[in-house]
Order: sequence, then C-alpha cells, then structure tokens
Amino acid sequence: MSFLLNKDRIVMGVDYYPEHWDKPLWAEDLDRMKKAGIEFIRIAEFSWNLFEPQEGEYTYTFFDEFLELCKEKDMKVIFCTPTATPPAWLTDKYPEVLNARQDGVLYRHGARRHYNYNSPIYQRFTRNIVERIASHYAPHESIIGWQIDNEINCEKDEFYSESDTIAFREFLKEKYGTIKNLNKAWGTAFWNQTYTSFSEVYVPRTTLSNSTNPHEVLDYKRFVSDSACRWAKLQSDIIRKYIKPGDFVTTNGLFGNLDNHRMVRESLDFMTYDSYPNMAYGVDSHFIETSGLRDRFWGLLLDEVRSLKGNFGIMEQQSGANGWNTAMAAPTPKPGQITLWTMQSIAHGADFVCYFRWRTCTFGTEIYWHGILDYSGRDNRRLKEITEIHDKFAAIKEVSGSEYKAEVGVVETYSNKFDSELDAWHKMIETTSKTGLYEASQFTHTPIDYVYLQDETRVEELAKYKVLIYPHAVIVTEKEASLLKEYVENGGTLILGCRAGMKDETGICSQKNMPGLLSDISGVEVTEFSLVTPGEKALVSWDDDEIEAAVFTDELSPSSGAEVLATYANRYNKGVPALVENKYGKGRVIYFGGAFNRHSAEVFFKKLGVINPLSEIMDIPEECEIAIREKENNRYIFVLNYSAEAQEITLKKDMFNMYTSASCSGKITLSSYETLILKQ
Amino acid sequence: MSFLLNKDRIVMGVDYYPEHWDKPLWAEDLDRMKKAGIEFIRIAEFSWNLFEPQEGEYTYTFFDEFLELCKEKDMKVIFCTPTATPPAWLTDKYPEVLNARQDGVLYRHGARRHYNYNSPIYQRFTRNIVERIASHYAPHESIIGWQIDNEINCEKDEFYSESDTIAFREFLKEKYGTIKNLNKAWGTAFWNQTYTSFSEVYVPRTTLSNSTNPHEVLDYKRFVSDSACRWAKLQSDIIRKYIKPGDFVTTNGLFGNLDNHRMVRESLDFMTYDSYPNMAYGVDSHFIETSGLRDRFWGLLLDEVRSLKGNFGIMEQQSGANGWNTAMAAPTPKPGQITLWTMQSIAHGADFVCYFRWRTCTFGTEIYWHGILDYSGRDNRRLKEITEIHDKFAAIKEVSGSEYKAEVGVVETYSNKFDSELDAWHKMIETTSKTGLYEASQFTHTPIDYVYLQDETRVEELAKYKVLIYPHAVIVTEKEASLLKEYVENGGTLILGCRAGMKDETGICSQKNMPGLLSDISGVEVTEFSLVTPGEKALVSWDDDEIEAAVFTDELSPSSGAEVLATYANRYNKGVPALVENKYGKGRVIYFGGAFNRHSAEVFFKKLGVINPLSEIMDIPEECEIAIREKENNRYIFVLNYSAEAQEITLKKDMFNMYTSASCSGKITLSSYETLILKQ
Amino acid sequence: MSFLLNKDRIVMGVDYYPEHWDKPLWAEDLDRMKKAGIEFIRIAEFSWNLFEPQEGEYTYTFFDEFLELCKEKDMKVIFCTPTATPPAWLTDKYPEVLNARQDGVLYRHGARRHYNYNSPIYQRFTRNIVERIASHYAPHESIIGWQIDNEINCEKDEFYSESDTIAFREFLKEKYGTIKNLNKAWGTAFWNQTYTSFSEVYVPRTTLSNSTNPHEVLDYKRFVSDSACRWAKLQSDIIRKYIKPGDFVTTNGLFGNLDNHRMVRESLDFMTYDSYPNMAYGVDSHFIETSGLRDRFWGLLLDEVRSLKGNFGIMEQQSGANGWNTAMAAPTPKPGQITLWTMQSIAHGADFVCYFRWRTCTFGTEIYWHGILDYSGRDNRRLKEITEIHDKFAAIKEVSGSEYKAEVGVVETYSNKFDSELDAWHKMIETTSKTGLYEASQFTHTPIDYVYLQDETRVEELAKYKVLIYPHAVIVTEKEASLLKEYVENGGTLILGCRAGMKDETGICSQKNMPGLLSDISGVEVTEFSLVTPGEKALVSWDDDEIEAAVFTDELSPSSGAEVLATYANRYNKGVPALVENKYGKGRVIYFGGAFNRHSAEVFFKKLGVINPLSEIMDIPEECEIAIREKENNRYIFVLNYSAEAQEITLKKDMFNMYTSASCSGKITLSSYETLILKQ
Repeated sequence: MSFLLNKDRIVMGVDYYPEHWDKPLWAEDLDRMKKAGIEFIRIAEFSWNLFEPQEGEYTYTFFDEFLELCKEKDMKVIFCTPTATPPAWLTDKYPEVLNARQDGVLYRHGARRHYNYNSPIYQRFTRNIVERIASHYAPHESIIGWQIDNEINCEKDEFYSESDTIAFREFLKEKYGTIKNLNKAWGTAFWNQTYTSFSEVYVPRTTLSNSTNPHEVLDYKRFVSDSACRWAKLQSDIIRKYIKPGDFVTTNGLFGNLDNHRMVRESLDFMTYDSYPNMAYGVDSHFIETSGLRDRFWGLLLDEVRSLKGNFGIMEQQSGANGWNTAMAAPTPKPGQITLWTMQSIAHGADFVCYFRWRTCTFGTEIYWHGILDYSGRDNRRLKEITEIHDKFAAIKEVSGSEYKAEVGVVETYSNKFDSELDAWHKMIETTSKTGLYEASQFTHTPIDYVYLQDETRVEELAKYKVLIYPHAVIVTEKEASLLKEYVENGGTLILGCRAGMKDETGICSQKNMPGLLSDISGVEVTEFSLVTPGEKALVSWDDDEIEAAVFTDELSPSSGAEVLATYANRYNKGVPALVENKYGKGRVIYFGGAFNRHSAEVFFKKLGVINPLSEIMDIPEECEIAIREKENNRYIFVLNYSAEAQEITLKKDMFNMYTSASCSGKITLSSYETLILKQ
Repeated sequence: MSFLLNKDRIVMGVDYYPEHWDKPLWAEDLDRMKKAGIEFIRIAEFSWNLFEPQEGEYTYTFFDEFLELCKEKDMKVIFCTPTATPPAWLTDKYPEVLNARQDGVLYRHGARRHYNYNSPIYQRFTRNIVERIASHYAPHESIIGWQIDNEINCEKDEFYSESDTIAFREFLKEKYGTIKNLNKAWGTAFWNQTYTSFSEVYVPRTTLSNSTNPHEVLDYKRFVSDSACRWAKLQSDIIRKYIKPGDFVTTNGLFGNLDNHRMVRESLDFMTYDSYPNMAYGVDSHFIETSGLRDRFWGLLLDEVRSLKGNFGIMEQQSGANGWNTAMAAPTPKPGQITLWTMQSIAHGADFVCYFRWRTCTFGTEIYWHGILDYSGRDNRRLKEITEIHDKFAAIKEVSGSEYKAEVGVVETYSNKFDSELDAWHKMIETTSKTGLYEASQFTHTPIDYVYLQDETRVEELAKYKVLIYPHAVIVTEKEASLLKEYVENGGTLILGCRAGMKDETGICSQKNMPGLLSDISGVEVTEFSLVTPGEKALVSWDDDEIEAAVFTDELSPSSGAEVLATYANRYNKGVPALVENKYGKGRVIYFGGAFNRHSAEVFFKKLGVINPLSEIMDIPEECEIAIREKENNRYIFVLNYSAEAQEITLKKDMFNMYTSASCSGKITLSSYETLILKQ
Repeated sequence: MSFLLNKDRIVMGVDYYPEHWDKPLWAEDLDRMKKAGIEFIRIAEFSWNLFEPQEGEYTYTFFDEFLELCKEKDMKVIFCTPTATPPAWLTDKYPEVLNARQDGVLYRHGARRHYNYNSPIYQRFTRNIVERIASHYAPHESIIGWQIDNEINCEKDEFYSESDTIAFREFLKEKYGTIKNLNKAWGTAFWNQTYTSFSEVYVPRTTLSNSTNPHEVLDYKRFVSDSACRWAKLQSDIIRKYIKPGDFVTTNGLFGNLDNHRMVRESLDFMTYDSYPNMAYGVDSHFIETSGLRDRFWGLLLDEVRSLKGNFGIMEQQSGANGWNTAMAAPTPKPGQITLWTMQSIAHGADFVCYFRWRTCTFGTEIYWHGILDYSGRDNRRLKEITEIHDKFAAIKEVSGSEYKAEVGVVETYSNKFDSELDAWHKMIETTSKTGLYEASQFTHTPIDYVYLQDETRVEELAKYKVLIYPHAVIVTEKEASLLKEYVENGGTLILGCRAGMKDETGICSQKNMPGLLSDISGVEVTEFSLVTPGEKALVSWDDDEIEAAVFTDELSPSSGAEVLATYANRYNKGVPALVENKYGKGRVIYFGGAFNRHSAEVFFKKLGVINPLSEIMDIPEECEIAIREKENNRYIFVLNYSAEAQEITLKKDMFNMYTSASCSGKITLSSYETLILKQ
C-alpha cells in the first residue's frame, strides 16, 4: 500500500520468473531493470514445485537465494501464491482436485487453473502451501505485497467436478433452506423439474438442447462466484497472519462468474489488472474489430476495474507481442504503443504499472507472449521505450492518487451481468448497449464510470453523477428500486432502457405490468414489447434527431404527468411513444423503449448536456481519447492518439504540457500513437 | 372426434398450465377464455409430479379440482400423458432410462424428452402412470380427448442408450433372422465389417470420420421410428381402454426418424401439429431466409401433416413471440400475423386451432415462448386479435370438413426421406428439389399434396392427381415401381428427377442400368451421371425455356419411342438428352436429369398445364398465397398476404367474401398480413 | 520391382475387390481388364474376415480360388495385408486395441484404421495374420508384390489409447533417460509442469484451452511417427521372410505425423501414392480453391512422394467421381481429366499407375468413390478413356525410369513440419510459403524438388540444386546448419525466410540472437521481428519490384560484408533492411524477412535466374503446367492443360510429339484438359 498506491509518483515494475533462467543471468537482469527505472518485480507465480517438489517435501532455498539477491539490488518484490498450477504429482495422485468438462471429462495437467475450488483435498493442500510460503517469506524485507493465485476464474469460469456438485448443494441449502423453496425459486413447475431432495440437484449437466433451467444457471453463476470469493479469502486470511505491516494482498485480472466487488471487499487491499490491448490487432480479434474500438475497448475494462475500489494497479501491462503457441497471435507493439497503452492504464486510474514480462519465455505455451526483451535478452527498442516511459512517469508523478472524473454513471449489477450471459434476449440488449454506450463515450470524449448497485451502495455514491444510465434493469430488487428512487428524488437524472423491471432476483418474470418495480418513478407502462426482426430497423423521432431503438421496442404508455419525448417513426408501431420523461422529486426518469447503439447513445449524451466536458477548451478528433483525472483542484487531461496516423488537436486556451513542463496552446500535432498529458 | 373435427364449425382452444399459476387466477382465466371464444384447453402436459410426486405415491387432487372448475365453466379439455418429462426422482434413481449422446454421455434431467423409448424400466413406469391417469380422469365429462406425450422425437431423434442397443438387436433379428442376412443387407463385405453375431452389433457409435455403415444407419432410423411408433401405441392402447365413447387420442408435432403415417394408423384418431411460422423472422432463421419462403415454409409442413390422414388439428398455434432463454428468439407477431398464420393452418387443412398458450410462463426455459397474454396477464392487442379471429371462424364455419384441393402430387417415401438424411449426395438433390418445388408451388399459386407411397397405398389414391412428381426416387421397391406403373398406365403423368432407381430398400445400389426398376416406364437409360461442380451451372434448353439441371446431371439415352424434350445446353455434355418423355399405357413418364430448383419447377408446372388453377378467375401477386378447399360443390379460396406491404389482387368475376358475407369483384387491396376467404 | 519399376514401359493396373462381386463376374472382369490394357490388380485390402472369420479359425480358399483365376488369365497381383480393418469379433472382444478420442471415447468398429499401433494384443493378432497370409500366398506366381495395411496414419494421425500412453513413456525413457532430462527438454519450469516420474506423463489429454505443452506435443508427434514406422516394419519383416525374389513390399499414401522417409528406408522397396485431384472440384474443397491451384495442388503432393526415394508408383489413381456417403462429394471426371491426372502423376515421377477401382462399390461408405465402371458395370466413357491412356502409355514407354528435373530445391525437415502444425505462428508462415512457392512454381513453369534434411543426407544430394530455398528454418540442428554451410561454401545459393534459427530440436527458442545457428552464413542479425497485423500489408522494395513480406517482418542488421538487397517500403519500419545477401565461400545466402507468397516467390525465381527453364524453347500459358523428365540425354517435356478451355502454346523449335510420333512446332492448341508429351 504505502509503496505502490497513494503516493506521489507512479511506480514501474516488471514480472520476472527466475526459474526460467540460468542463475548467472539473475544479477545482470536485476541491474538492467533498475537501470530502466523498474523498482519492483512480481515473482513466484506458478512455482509450487519450487516449494514442494514432492508431496510433503518442502524447500525454500530457491526463492531465499533469489530474495537475497533482490535485497542486495534493492529490488522490491510482489510474491505470489502458486495455486493456479498444482504440481503433476498432486493431480496425478488426486484427480478429484481437477475441474471437469460439463460432460465429466477431467481437465488434465499441463495448462493452468485446472483445479476446482471446492475439492476438500485441494483446499487442504492449498492451506498448507500458503501457510508455509507466507510464514517463511513474508518477513523478508524486499517483499512489499502478495498476489493470490493468478487470474481467478480465467481460462474457465465454470466448474463441473463432483466436489462442485457437493458444494453447490450446500450453497443452495443455505440459500433456500428447503427443497420446496428451491423448487419455487427455480420455477421447477415448468417441464416437471420439481426436486424432492437436494441430492437430486447437480451443477448443470449435459442436457438436451443444452437447456438447463435458467434460474438454476443464475444460482450456479452466483455459486461459482461464491466459490471463487471464498477461495481468495481462504488464502488472504492465511497471508494476513504473516505479512509485514504495510504490505498488501491483491490479485490480478477481471474474469467472469465472479463478484469482483465482494472479492476485493473481503480479501484484497486493492485490485490489479492485466492489460493487453494489442489483442485488438491479433488474429483472433474479430469481436473487437467490429466495434471500431479496437485497443480503446480496454478503456472499458479499466473502467470496470476502477469501479471496484477506485484507483488500482496494473499487474501485467503489455510490453511485447502476445500469443500462445496455439492462439491469440498478435504483432509486436509498434513504436509508441507501449507508451500509449501504459498511459491508457494510468488515464483510467492505474497508479502503478508492472510490465509483463522481462524476458520472453523460451519454452512452453507462452513463447509468443513476449516480454520487453526477446529470447536473446539483448537490449532492444522496447526496453528503450520502457526507459522513456519511466522518464514520463517522473514528469507526471503528481497524477498519482488523482481521481478519474466522469459525470455519467452507467449502472450495473452482478445479477444482470450473470443473467445477460445465460439469457439470449437479455444478452442481445446488454451487449448492444454496453458497446454502444462505450463507443459513444470514447468517440464523443464523454468519460463514464461504471457504478455497481450492491447491498453496500449508498445514495451518496450515486449522487455525484449528473446522469445515471441503467441500460437494462432487467432484474431489479426492491432495495435497488428504492436506491434509484432516492437518487432521482434528490435531483438525479436516470435513464432506463428497454426491459426494465422484467425479472426478480431469481430471474423469474414479474407479473406486474412492466417496468414493474420501476413503474412508479418512470411514469410509464409498457403495453407491448417486441424483439426487432433481424434485418429490420426500428426508428425513433426525437426532435430533430432520428435514432434507432436497437434490438427491442417497448411500446410506452405515459402516466399522467409524464411527457412523451419521442415516438416510433416507422413500422407497425409508428407514432407509439418510444421515449418518455417523468419528473420525479427533484429529478427525472427517462425511459427509452430500445437498446442503445453508438448513435443513439451520442444523441442521449448531447440532449442530456453531458457530452464532451472539455469541448470548450479543446477540439479533439475522434481518433483520440481524452480522460480527466483530478486531485486537489488540479485537472490532468490525458490525450491519447490511438491512430497510426498523426492527429491534430486544438487547445483553445493555454495549458501545461506535463512531459515537457512547457505551456502550450493552439494547434498541436500528435504523431502516431503519441500521448499528451496536460495539467490545468 | 365428434367435438373437434368433421363438424360444421372451426373450434378454437388454448394451451393452459394451471400448475404455473396461483389458483385464484384459474377461474378468472377460464372466464376470460370463454369470452374470447375459446371452447377447449389442453392441460397436464409435463405434469408427472402432480400425479406421482414420489415413486409409488399417487395423488389426483390437483387436476380433479381443476377439472371440476372446467366443468363448472363449461370448458372442454384435452388431457395429456406426462411422459415427455420424467420426474427428477425417477431419472436420478434409474439413470438407465435416459437417452445418451452418441459417445455415451447421458442427457440429464432438466430439459425434456431425455428418456429413451426402449428402457424396460421407463416402459414400466410409463405403463403404470398412463394406466392410473387414464383410468382416473378419462370418465370426466369435460375431457374430449387425449394427447400422448409431447412432440414425439422432438429435441432429439437419435437414441444411444444401452437399452437402445439391446432393442436394436431384437429389431434386426426380427428383420433379418440370421446374421448372414444382416451382413448381406448391410454390405459388410466393405471395409471388413462382417459380424459373426448380433451381439457385436450396436446402435451407431463413435467412429472415425463419423462414418457408420450407411445401410446400418438406414436401418437404425427405421428402428428409431419403430421404437417411437411402439411408444405411442403402448400409451394409446392403455388410454383406449378407458376413454369415453367419442373421445379421441392424438399427439402433436411432426419430427424426424419417424414414420408418422404408421404412428397415426396404429395409435391416433387424427394428427395435430404445432405451428410456429414466426421462427422465420427470428435470429436462428437463416435456413428459411435463404429460400425466400420465410413463414410460407410452414405451408410445406402443414401439407406434410395433411398427407397423414387428411384434415387435422393445430395443437399449438403461434400467438406470441417464440424463443427459449437460450435460442430461437423471434419478434412479437405483428398486427394481423396471428390471424394470417391461423388462416394458413386452416387453408392447408386444419379444422380446429389451439393457441399456445394463454399466459406467457414467467419461469423456466420458455419465458420467451410467449402466449396470447404477457407475463402480467393484462388484456392486450393479441387477445383482441384472437377474439376477432373467433368472429372470422364463425363467418367461415362451413369450411370445416372441406378438403384441400391440389392437382399435383409430390411423391415421397420414408426410405428416401431417411436415406437423404444420411447420404450427402441424396441430401443435396432432395433438399434442392423439395425447396424448389415448394417455392414454385407458393409463388405460382399451384397447390400441391404430398403423397407417401406405403404398403397400404392404392393406385386410386394416386389417380386423383393430374401430375405426380417424384423428384428423386433413389430407393425404389418392386411394389412401388409397380404402383407407379399402374398410375401411368391408367393415364397419369409421372415426372422423375435424377438418380431414380439407384438403390434398393437396404440402400444398396442396383447393378441394373439406371433408372433400374423404373427403366421400363421411363424409356430412358442413364448412360453417365455427375454431380455438378460447386460454382458451375448445368443448363438445359427446353423449347424456349432455359432451365437448370440443379446439383446433378444424368445423361439420358432414350429408348425407341421415347422422345427427347430437351438437351443439355452447355459444358462438356452439350447436346446430350436431359429430358425425355415416354408414353406408357394411357399416360406418360418424363425423366429429368437434374434436381428441381424454383425456376425449373415453375417451367414444369407451366408446360404440364397445372400452373395456377385459379388464373382465369383472379390475378394474385407472388406475395400472396392462394389455397383451395372444397366441400359439396363449394370451393373456398384462401388468399393470404404474407407481406408487410399492402397487395392488390383482381377478381375477374364476382365472388363471395366470407368474412363480410358480401359479394366482391375487381381490384381489392389486402393490407399487410390481411387474409381473405372467398366462396365460389 | 522388376515388373513395375525400372522398366522401359509404364504399366497400368486397377484395384479390385473380388469379395464385393458375385463370382460369375470375376472371369468376365479380368478379361475386360486385360482388354483395356490392365496388367495387374491390387486385392485383399480390408479382407481379414476372409482369412480369419472367427478368432483362431483360418481359411485360404477365397483368395486361393481367385489367384488361380488370375494365373489363368495372366493377371499380376499386388496382395495387401488386412490390418487397416480389424474384424468385429476382434474389436468387440478386445476393445483395448481401439484408438480413442483425446477425451477417452473409443473409436468403434465400422470405419477403418480404428486400431492403435501400440496395443500388444493387436500386435499379436497382426503378427499372426501377416505371418499366415504371407507364408500361404507369397509363393503364388501371380503375385508380384505386397501392400502393407492401407494408408498408414490416414483417417486419424493421433492416438490416445492407454497402450499409447504406455508406449509413449517407453519412447520418452529411451530418448531422455531421466525425468530430469525430460523436464528440461519440455521446459516444464513453465506453468509448474515439472514431472517427478514418467508415470505422470501421458499422451496429450484434455486440457483447458486445449493447450498441452508444445514440446510434449512435438515429441508426441515424433512418437506417433515412430509407432507407425515400427508398425510398417513389423509387417515388412514378416513378409520379407516369404516373398519370392523380385517381389516388392510397399504401402500407399502420404499422411501426417509420420516420417515417411524413415518408413520407406526401413520397410519399403518404394512408395506408392493415392492421387485424387478431383477433390479440388468437390463440395469440401474450399482450402484448395483459395490457392488457385485446384487440381494442380496434387503436383505438390506428388513432389513430396518423389522426395522419398525418387520414382514411385500410383496405387490409386482417380478414375471416377469421389465421395463418401457422408462427405467429399465431387463430380465425375470430365472427358480428358482422367488422362490429365494420370499424366500429372507420370510427369511428377510415377512409373506405374493403378486405377481405383474397377467397378464402383454398390454398398458401404464409399458408394460414391467411383471406379472406372459405374454400379452396373456396363462399358462407359471412362473405360474408353482408360483404354486410350493405355495406348498413350505405349507411345511414351521410354519415359519410364527417367528422372524429374528441377534446379530449385525447397528444403524441409520433419521437425519443422511437425512444429508448424502445433505452433500457430509457425503454421502461418509455413503454409503461406509452401503455397506461395508452389503457386509460383506452377504458374511460372519452374519445377521444384522437395529436399528433406535427414541424418542420412549428404551434401552431394544438395549440390545438384542451383538454388535451395529453406522457407522457414525455424528448428535447426547443428548438423543441419553444418550441412547447409557446406552446400553454400561449395557454391550453392541458399534462400532463408523469416524466423530462421529460432528453435532447437526440442522446440525451445534459442537465446542466441536470431538467426541463431544460421547467423554465420547468413551475415545478418534479426534486431526486431513482428507478425503483420491481419489486414495490413508489409511491403518491400527490391530494385524495381515491390514484394510483400507476408505474415511476418524480421528487421535485419547486415554484418560487415553483407549487402542489403531490399528494404521495407511502408509502415513504421520503412527503410529497414528486409533482404540481405551474404557471400559465403563460393556461394551465397540471401535472408528474407518475411514469408513467401506467390508474387514474391515469382520475383525470387526471376532474380535468381531459375524461372522457367524452357522459356527459350516454348511459350506456355499459365493454365498449363510443364514438367521435365530426363533419361540418357533425352528430355521428356510434359505439357498439361488443366483448364476447361482450349489453350494455345508455341514451340519455338521443332520437337517430337510422343503420342503421334510426329514432329511439331509453332502454335499448337491444346483442347480442354489435353496433354502433350514432347521429346527432345
């Protein structure tokens, strides 16, 4: 904590795997790192065998020796627990610790994260090894913090082992008490699914048409999240017994079927993220290409990380081409791109950056997941760029600790996130709006925050947003409805998209007229609704703008006092209200009958007066992102050119260029991938 | 029988699931149904647990109570057997009742139809539950008929459990007597497949290149069909012991690997069908889009149902959007479409219509398989449309019992249907011609019947068709050849497409010169044949028309007396006969060397003088279908506008508009999705 | 040997399956074959049950009888061992002989090659049956040679049975001695993969993200190859005990994960190939269509066969449409194509041709894998064409034994072949260059040889090539580097593409600066490298030519004395050297930073002076291939028109048309698919 965050500078680190290199290289590597400005390294990920080469046989010499060298070279260390990759001797002797394919086939040794969280045997081995490692190494003065496991829920966020079924039953017993309650919550009256005992319940198994009960799947996702959170806590509880004051516990990544907010709350001091925007330029990048965001899509992911607990760190920042020998091939970062993506991380709230990795591994699946250096380790262009980034970090050190600034909050909940993954209709609207809003945010220079509604959320956290957009409040609880109501009553503007209030927490559809629990504040009743036929477009006239009701059309009937802002402009429901505003308390709710694509989101930003908060002081082309961080009356404006072409920006007033410590104004040309950080 | 069919009116029903709703809603729902014109409901589908909540524990109170309410409200009831969804307690205790993936993985509880027909245990449970239900409920005066199971062979029409292997061996022993006969019939001399004992034979298992012996697969399909037919009979035999005089037994759907004709003949009073043309507008509808038929494709399916036993009922008629939470998302029917699709069903031979379903289920996989009412149950546009349809039913009541009228019969057999599914070459020609002929039929207003050649088929049934088209008589038996010969001798016109006479009943190729058993009547010998290279087109000049020999080119050598009508017009076989007519008896056979696409089928209809039998009395645009039903010298002409645009038709003589009971003639505009029923 | 190869004529045969036909047809068939010019037949493939119908019950009468008929008719015979298709009684009783899917599901009876090589039980059955067959039939005077099994490693070249794991461990123990050595060779320090015992090692199993250790996979491929080679040797060792002097042992095909050179060296007298160029015109042919080579792609395959041991035979030459009932549907060969593809085989080094098959099988999976005759067996166009080919064979008989002539050798190794299949980056460059070079070869009329570097390779074998192109020497051993050095020192020109010297024999990346072991001779250092972003193009200016560095860009730094021939022409690395020539000894090495596409390969051929060696004596359009075979100062020039259109060629001097025995010169028109063989 003290070392990496809340400081007045941005610290640079690198991931290092001493076990991959001959010992003679170690000292040389540490010296070269220091010279490049690297102050800490992450080590011991995936290293179980270096602590316990055989069952019950322990050794500490490898990392003792290495940590002594770190101490000598004044290199700080983040130490990892090794549980992401159990040893061969363990999984071969105890195959019940393995995760399984849904049809029962075990995932075998050789990759990573092939274990299941709920195996009592694996939990026993994990407790033992973490206890031993933490107790042995934690006192070492070079260590500044700990990483638990690696990328929890990465590779696979579904678990189908027998231990998982046993734990799932316990999870359900605790949640529902009786099988009757479970039957009700899962709607098992449908298709004669009624259970007579918890022993008849399993994690989702192979079914015809791959169609497990959706309420079960929703609970199963919560169960996986619960298992992962308990997994992190199992380890952090042990580590915290031993760590030195000021040392932190974290983990890295942001993966599915996981309530990351809970995991952070329960187990971590802060979150770190592994950022690889270069995937957008690789061979498997079609999903990103279509949105036009390409590497800017990683801003969305960074915003999600920031939503967890504010500023964060980057545990793995791209410094070379990425790729496995089997997939994800991407080119080498072009000159400037490592800087660009590093500044993207910082712009969105990172306060330290650790590059993945020092040298590129010469063996194994990740020979193409390049580090700063290539296989030979020789000095190269990328190391030079890293060294220059270190100089830039010095120039912008006061940015550290400042806060990302957004007037627009986009509301999310884990229930809706999980439901939109299992419900094909929900998924269509959710992914359309998520992408549409983010594209509009990026291309119109309108920063956003993601705001998760949780049990702990207080209305004050919402009140700071001029506008909250809750694209699809499909699942709404009474508590959430009440929180949103309070936000609006106090003067907030809440935008709701189609399908609001459709389901309760179990994923069962409300028998209230939609938008159900949100009817009161929104002042509308949805009289009809329809998916838009693929190939068709549903248009909406909103003053002079024509927008699309993407994917879905809710037909709205305004209650008295509510105002129709726009109506459908074509097709069979032409003239029917599509957009209704309802004044409520000091605020208002605007209900939109469709999902948000890029263009409609831009029109919303414009009409709501939140578009581009910097428009008065600078003109920025679409190709560049702007981000704002604030601290103590200072405003730090990041301008990031994601394009391979030079871009011209115009500063309409004098500003301070932090890299050059010089004033600047008027037309400025950013070369390809160039970044600029202005202070105001 | 007495209630639903062969009456002088068209009865309307709805599917209802009392177990999905709180009891207080029941009476209200029944009242509202009656008000809308609904006279019967289907219930108890998927309700095993409501009869036998634990093994050997029986209860009848739920439906006793509900049926009493029906009696009170004068609502007639179709009662279902619950065998499509075995209880969790059953499959958990006896997993051997489950169907399996080909590689042995069991399909588990939670979806539907996950049982196998041949499990002795499941047969025992089924006999028991059907016996109990039928004996208990059958006397109830509200009940008018019974549905067996639900959609037999839906979800999956392949069965790979161990019980299936045991039953398959019995099936084969009965069919072949000795393993030597089986070896011969399956051509096991190929690839050393010879069996020495029936115990070495299995249902198709995992093989390299997924290439099980094709003759085995053909017999396996017949075996699945046999299992399904025996399954229906097992249940109908029990039900018939108990039902009141006049009550009927039916089932719903039309699925693969099933000789539906046999099932109807053995077990059912009539067939019902589940009609969801809106799938054509959903997200998974690419296969339909390409044909241009979209929702008109369901006419083909309805014609198939009619081929079973003439007029039929609709057990599930689309009344809302369809979709599972995992797949098949489609929009809400647009205003008019429910009427359109209802009239499509009636036009093609339905005499009663039961809408799926009253309220949309609020839980489970089918929350998007909408009913008339949405989740809230409030009155809506669709209920209004249903009520209006009821008025239309009153206006056209005399249509009931009338017969669909077609001059063209398209010949099919189950052997060819099955073979075309397992044989990639056969499939290409079969699907091309099936689609091509149906498109031509729809767009040129040329009604067709499907005519299945069966053991029971008599020449009189064929004789009523001016023209029989047997697109690809790949498998022909002596009996079939003789029947066709008789049809032609008596004056019929028979059109044969490529590959006729290629195989015998086992799927083994004839060593006769093709068209083998059909050589005599067709007067041709196929001297060479070839698939058409993908990307190429094989053209045929036929008088002034140029048509395509789609997919395949048989090169024909006419026997003396046969006349070459057309020759190939391009490529290496230019000038070679492609179309030969042979006068035979009082009739003629025309052999065409290719498969039929839409255009070639239209040219055939035109040249054969069967195109659009109504052309002299009306002009109808392509966007509208016409269908003709006849009864006692009355002709009922359905005009159905499938387009979202208005369409103009012209009546060249005065006709009687049944909806309005008014005479009409000249230009008439049908608005989007509008239907018109004329009497003549 | 004596009969089929090294003779002064080209012998014609046909594949025959007497067990598929009624005995009365046999004599008739043999007579008709002889009449068509067919001198030998291949029989007994897939016939285990005809020798051992039950376990331990042997019979020889079927083929005794058939061979007597062959003797009577003077038909020579190639006899096959039947091991590709074990009997049902065998696999049913001993399922452990079966191959398995990676997830453990066994591949069952009914297809072919479903056994595993390493099953002790199957090895026992195989030894026994081969011993019995060889000892019984080998003395028969009609037999001229033996085929082992059928298409070794076809259908599936991966094996996952338990026997394979046991054998894999033995293979690894022999290779590595200790588990420590294995850990080092496989880089198990990555992802904590370290093994403590061989018993923890398995053939690749199901892993998350399908990502087994790449070095393990590389060794696994070598293990599969080793197993297959031992399999062939097991059989040939037995056969050679019994065969008559002069009779040969061979097998057919060319499949993956197999060091065919070793197999030939250890077990075969020569190799035969199964050539089906018509696949290029079938429904599953997309991979071939894209290259523009279509049926000319088979030239590449034939060149690979020739690389094994020079001239070869064709065991299955396409004579009808191909296709299974499940896949690979292709049209009937058009008039001339059988001749074309036969001459393609001969042009590339075949000295005998055996057509697949006499009659088309009327049952089983291959009813569409047509023979010369169709199902009826009647005389047809294709038999006529075969007969005409026989006349052509007579006219060109002296071609037999002549040698294919190429000035360019394309270098390959099995290590790189295997590695490029498991390494996605390696695959991209390898497939691009393999296709690019072959397209350039075909379309510019520049014959090439494939040259495999093996332990046995001597520099003399390389010295005959004016130019060696080693597209991607990713894995290089010291021995290979030294061989290439010697070739260059002695005056050779060696072209290297990107990524040379990257890995050692285990697939571990070298820590030397690239090109590692090839640095010395190439005179370059690769300072940076990058995949090219999909969608981008990396251009290179080479004098007046602009070529593409396909897939990859190595940035080159020339050592002193080396000359920069070309630089990158666009993007961020514009101006950086992309092509460097280094004089070395009497020769030179040219290093190219990218992969070779068709156009760049053409430019290389042109600049290196090896393009179209016949350009001075004839003008040939791109649509025609030319090939040159030489013997005793005679040059035989094949001109093959692959096009459906007539093509005009120009002979600039008088030449001898071997078909017509007439002199010819000037403009000559080849009709569609026509071939011409000139002697000079």
